[in-house]
Amino acid sequence: MEATIGIIRGDGIGPEIVTEAVKVLNKIQVVFGHSFSFKELLLGGASIDATGEPLTEATIKEAKTCEAVLMGSIGGDPNTSPWYQLPANLRPEAGLLKIRKELNLFANLRPAVLYDSLKAACPLKEELISGGFDMMIMRELTGGLYFGERSLEEKDGVRIAKDSLTYTDVEIRRIAIRAFEIARKRRGKVTSVDKANVLDSSRLWRQVVNEVAKDYEDVELEHMLVDNCAMQLVKNPQQFDVILTENMFGDILSDEASMVTGSIGMLASASLNDTAFGLYEPSGGSAPDIAGKGVANPIATILSAAMLLKYSLGLDEEAACIEEAVGKVLELNQRTLDIAGEDSVIIGTEEMGNLICAEI
Amino acid sequence: MEATIGIIRGDGIGPEIVTEAVKVLNKIQVVFGHSFSFKELLLGGASIDATGEPLTEATIKEAKTCEAVLMGSIGGDPNTSPWYQLPANLRPEAGLLKIRKELNLFANLRPAVLYDSLKAACPLKEELISGGFDMMIMRELTGGLYFGERSLEEKDGVRIAKDSLTYTDVEIRRIAIRAFEIARKRRGKVTSVDKANVLDSSRLWRQVVNEVAKDYEDVELEHMLVDNCAMQLVKNPQQFDVILTENMFGDILSDEASMVTGSIGMLASASLNDTAFGLYEPSGGSAPDIAGKGVANPIATILSAAMLLKYSLGLDEEAACIEEAVGKVLELNQRTLDIAGEDSVIIGTEEMGNLICAEI
Ligand SMILES: CC(C)[C@H](C(=O)O)[C@@H](O)C(=O)O
Ligand SMILES: CC(C)[C@H](C(=O)O)[C@@H](O)C(=O)O
Repeated sequence: MEATIGIIRGDGIGPEIVTEAVKVLNKIQVVFGHSFSFKELLLGGASIDATGEPLTEATIKEAKTCEAVLMGSIGGDPNTSPWYQLPANLRPEAGLLKIRKELNLFANLRPAVLYDSLKAACPLKEELISGGFDMMIMRELTGGLYFGERSLEEKDGVRIAKDSLTYTDVEIRRIAIRAFEIARKRRGKVTSVDKANVLDSSRLWRQVVNEVAKDYEDVELEHMLVDNCAMQLVKNPQQFDVILTENMFGDILSDEASMVTGSIGMLASASLNDTAFGLYEPSGGSAPDIAGKGVANPIATILSAAMLLKYSLGLDEEAACIEEAVGKVLELNQRTLDIAGEDSVIIGTEEMGNLICAEI
Repeated sequence: MEATIGIIRGDGIGPEIVTEAVKVLNKIQVVFGHSFSFKELLLGGASIDATGEPLTEATIKEAKTCEAVLMGSIGGDPNTSPWYQLPANLRPEAGLLKIRKELNLFANLRPAVLYDSLKAACPLKEELISGGFDMMIMRELTGGLYFGERSLEEKDGVRIAKDSLTYTDVEIRRIAIRAFEIARKRRGKVTSVDKANVLDSSRLWRQVVNEVAKDYEDVELEHMLVDNCAMQLVKNPQQFDVILTENMFGDILSDEASMVTGSIGMLASASLNDTAFGLYEPSGGSAPDIAGKGVANPIATILSAAMLLKYSLGLDEEAACIEEAVGKVLELNQRTLDIAGEDSVIIGTEEMGNLICAEI
């Protein structure tokens, strides 16, 4: 297969971890006889430095010509980076929000998986995670508070700030369908999370999810309030298969779930629209404190590349091959610092990339 | 001292746990020579059953004549209780939201404490909680998404739901001042939680909190994004002293924090306005599944009564006396089911109340 893959190296540890993921994609090309071409794109801090804007029209246009985009993490340290002296709409994160909207990436998939060999890193007690856990958080990514009208004004000496949270049935339906489709290929359960005892948007959310559920009688649906879900993720993460929720709740819950795994450096993510296109990136941040040191864990980005192969290029076998290679390397007990156990051999970003390539 | 205390028994386990807390208040009266009179008020499901409304004008009027109100938990099982067949604004929770607004209870205090003798119940690994933790979550309770304009309408065949999130500097300042005042009496640290990289309301929140901080140079202030806070509560709860946040984030984070303690049946809460008045209630829910069985843990309600003595009546010594009594009973290792360890003697709601009274 021929495919053009956009590459956004990003900020902080971004360039290092993306380099390893590209190495893995190159190995896949060779082994499976594909032909990938890579197109370098700018977003975030790197784009501000080069162009003055976190996301240019050129990047958007180029991204649209790609089958998929692989991205490192975006942004810097808000306390020290000059990017954070800029107005909010010119900061690195604004580029991220804009590309989500411009490319209509409404479906954000964030797996939170406890790897057997990484149980020691999980903050939860042994007995709570004996069965492991493996959930997929499906976050709506282009609606809600993130993209509502907002204002900050002064009236009669009082400063008033407003944000608005809007959802239409159309927006809810398309993400719900995605969640049910994915649940069907997994363990067949969707937990839809809202705050229907308070919000009208959540009441509509629940209605529409119930409507969609009628077409998926083989999938079990439960509704959970967001405050309860924040508790259940800590108390009993094993109960979840697919969690379906709106943008802001998804932001909070997916980060909580990623921390519950104890190994955020392992977690991939995908942001999809209604074509095969997707933007793939590690769940973790740009970790400016360890940038350039060659110690960051590239696995989340490598697994994001695997998601890219699976969801955008339909290369399921190749994706599985990467996942297996990662599994094997974990068993060798050669680890980057963030996932090192007591008797692990500690290796760097590049060595980790090489080891995984060697298993492909 | 003479004081009138409103008593809302509430739904589910509410009546049982409130009975024990009232018993404790009675013991305090006798031991310390106070004269409390109790006024029974209706709210939630019990009020719907008696009057058809979750909160009547009569209750509001009566509550205003009390120095403080002690409340059990409100609501039933949404899947089985007839209350949830009613329109949203007539359900038990609507009464709770209304009383918060009517009495201007803008400051919600939710302690999340890990008791030494209950470490076994904490879902986090031993090494993460070796130093224990003790935080106070200060949630803004009368603004934000909870009380914004909302609508659910159909236009050209599309259903559109809207909620709005508004904060004024006045609302933010008064809760921030409370947080700094409380931090000053504790370990001197405020973590203000927002989503300032996305929301205008959060940008105003951060501005105003920074302004207030200038009057509290002895208190350390840090800002944290809500998604990061959801992670940090699991990774390292010891870092927090006072967490200050808006209504919806506070709902989610306080529940997450309560679960991190592993003993939600121990957690009190207070909702205060700008007078000495307050509404005090356990953090946990009404647990309809165990209602009427005499097994519910009354400690959260008893500790809520202690908060009432401290915050509304200024009876610090009496409050401390209740807290110590609870501590002593925990050491006896006689426990209700929810906090029982391997070799605990399991006791019921009433016995627990009696044991605590005996220590006063
Ligand atoms: C950087 C920020 C705007 C972003 C978000 O809130 O969506 C990030 O936290 C994420 O989850 O991808
Ligand atoms: C019952 C519900 C409306 C309420 C809230 O969300 O505030 C509850 O979850 C709480 O935290 O007191």
